[in-house]
Amino acid sequence: MAQDLEAVPTTAVSAFGDRLAEAIERKRSQLVVGLDPRLDLLPVELRGDAPATAVSRFSRGIVDAVAPHAVAIKPQLAFFEALGPDGMRALEEVCAYAHAAGLLVIADGKRGDIGSTARAYAAAYLQPRAGAGALADALTVNPYLGSDSLEPFLAACRREGAGIFCLVKTSNEGGADVQDLVLRDGRLLWQHIARLVGEWGEDLVGERGLSSVGAVIGATHPRAVGEARRMLPRAILLLPGVGAQGATPADVARAFTSGPASALVTVSRAVMYASRHSDADWRTAAGSEAARLKTEVWAASGW
Amino acid sequence: MAQDLEAVPTTAVSAFGDRLAEAIERKRSQLVVGLDPRLDLLPVELRGDAPATAVSRFSRGIVDAVAPHAVAIKPQLAFFEALGPDGMRALEEVCAYAHAAGLLVIADGKRGDIGSTARAYAAAYLQPRAGAGALADALTVNPYLGSDSLEPFLAACRREGAGIFCLVKTSNEGGADVQDLVLRDGRLLWQHIARLVGEWGEDLVGERGLSSVGAVIGATHPRAVGEARRMLPRAILLLPGVGAQGATPADVARAFTSGPASALVTVSRAVMYASRHSDADWRTAAGSEAARLKTEVWAASGW
Repeated sequence: MAQDLEAVPTTAVSAFGDRLAEAIERKRSQLVVGLDPRLDLLPVELRGDAPATAVSRFSRGIVDAVAPHAVAIKPQLAFFEALGPDGMRALEEVCAYAHAAGLLVIADGKRGDIGSTARAYAAAYLQPRAGAGALADALTVNPYLGSDSLEPFLAACRREGAGIFCLVKTSNEGGADVQDLVLRDGRLLWQHIARLVGEWGEDLVGERGLSSVGAVIGATHPRAVGEARRMLPRAILLLPGVGAQGATPADVARAFTSGPASALVTVSRAVMYASRHSDADWRTAAGSEAARLKTEVWAASGW
Repeated sequence: MAQDLEAVPTTAVSAFGDRLAEAIERKRSQLVVGLDPRLDLLPVELRGDAPATAVSRFSRGIVDAVAPHAVAIKPQLAFFEALGPDGMRALEEVCAYAHAAGLLVIADGKRGDIGSTARAYAAAYLQPRAGAGALADALTVNPYLGSDSLEPFLAACRREGAGIFCLVKTSNEGGADVQDLVLRDGRLLWQHIARLVGEWGEDLVGERGLSSVGAVIGATHPRAVGEARRMLPRAILLLPGVGAQGATPADVARAFTSGPASALVTVSRAVMYASRHSDADWRTAAGSEAARLKTEVWAASGW
């Protein structure tokens, strides 16, 4: 029975880049709100709840607040894993809630493994589950284990219309310890990884000219953003580091020269915890900050 | 209350390497059994159970079978995550069961992230949870995000007596795409990462001379095993690739020149699914294969 079903051609799925481009143009927003739900920073009114319940309620409240302004949410899997099975239940709730609110979901797991293990990660996050859709539309991945380790994720891109964002040049200072190592030909390691990302995504370019294989480039490195843009004209760049980590929308302007949908700016703490610097209710504060950032990023993108 | 408790000095914890060395010498075993519970390979008698129940029962059956022969189990987190919240519940059950059976637990997650996210991963796997001990004694980590990304894990090593195993030279062929890149000074990338692993683990050496910061080196690369041994005299080498991936105990012999506890050989499919090549019950087959490998590895180690 299952085999019969598999033999029937499935409805053509839209490529991740096409779905994203449609959402970005409709909402005039390239903003992704990161969900890093830290128990010690939860709104006071939720602190009486069990941890996973509070995290779910808080995250869903943020989804409500930012849905008009953002194109996607980016849950940090670590914060949900740290709460055990109940945290994973909260993750499911939040992802389903975000999908229902018309947001795409980028699972930030930075996963990377080989063979059947990589297939299990792809199944966990990018493939439809029993009685439900896929948890996420895209997953962040780590390139250290090389091309064959990415193959199961590329297969999910082809088959399910999923996307991946491969770490290339991360926003933290220490990333340079590894990513800025100089290779024999004078290039930096991250530049070589960027080239591999281009190869991995070459045959996964959708109708809008965007590949399902994107790259993570820290907005804290504006020159690297520009260089990655030139090296990877068809990759969607996922740009963390705006807000708490110190980068500004102007730092990411050059990421958008391949089109309004060719980059995403992810902001986490500055939106989630906006009420810490405001007198407003936490939802209102998060919504206002998301609205402000969306407009600022769109303007900086030049579209 | 929680703060008061934190202010009281905790009982001195044993370093990971010391606990491991004690177990290895007592059991005369350097064998780690990897748990990669694939639904399509479960014993027939468990296929009527709900997936997470079957995975938990199967994994606990393997724990029973291998406990006399192995020093640790290494659950592959992906296979549990792929089953959602129930899978994470199964992971908790299996880890607690293994601890009760006197085995150490190495969570194979290959995690790596920055700042508060890395702290959340350390909390998820290496720190005592509410009303329970830590899920695992050690975690595999990915070095691509650099030194500061490892700091929260190193803190868990210092504070909780946990261990980490950093990916250096992985067992898959494609790993060479990245790990064998030649740096300006002629060294390969993985050799540079090995040097970093040595630095990260320098101040975490226990009484038995072993650091809490180990390195993952594929047994499929015997020359790299020997070289890593020379570069990292105090690191515990975690050696996957024996069995289904083609390496033999002889390939890892040179990993043990720093002592009988200076390396661990991890075998997954060849033990878990041993009954596929045998007429015996799955538990018996797994136990026999673990016993055989334990003896072979101990002999190859020369101790």
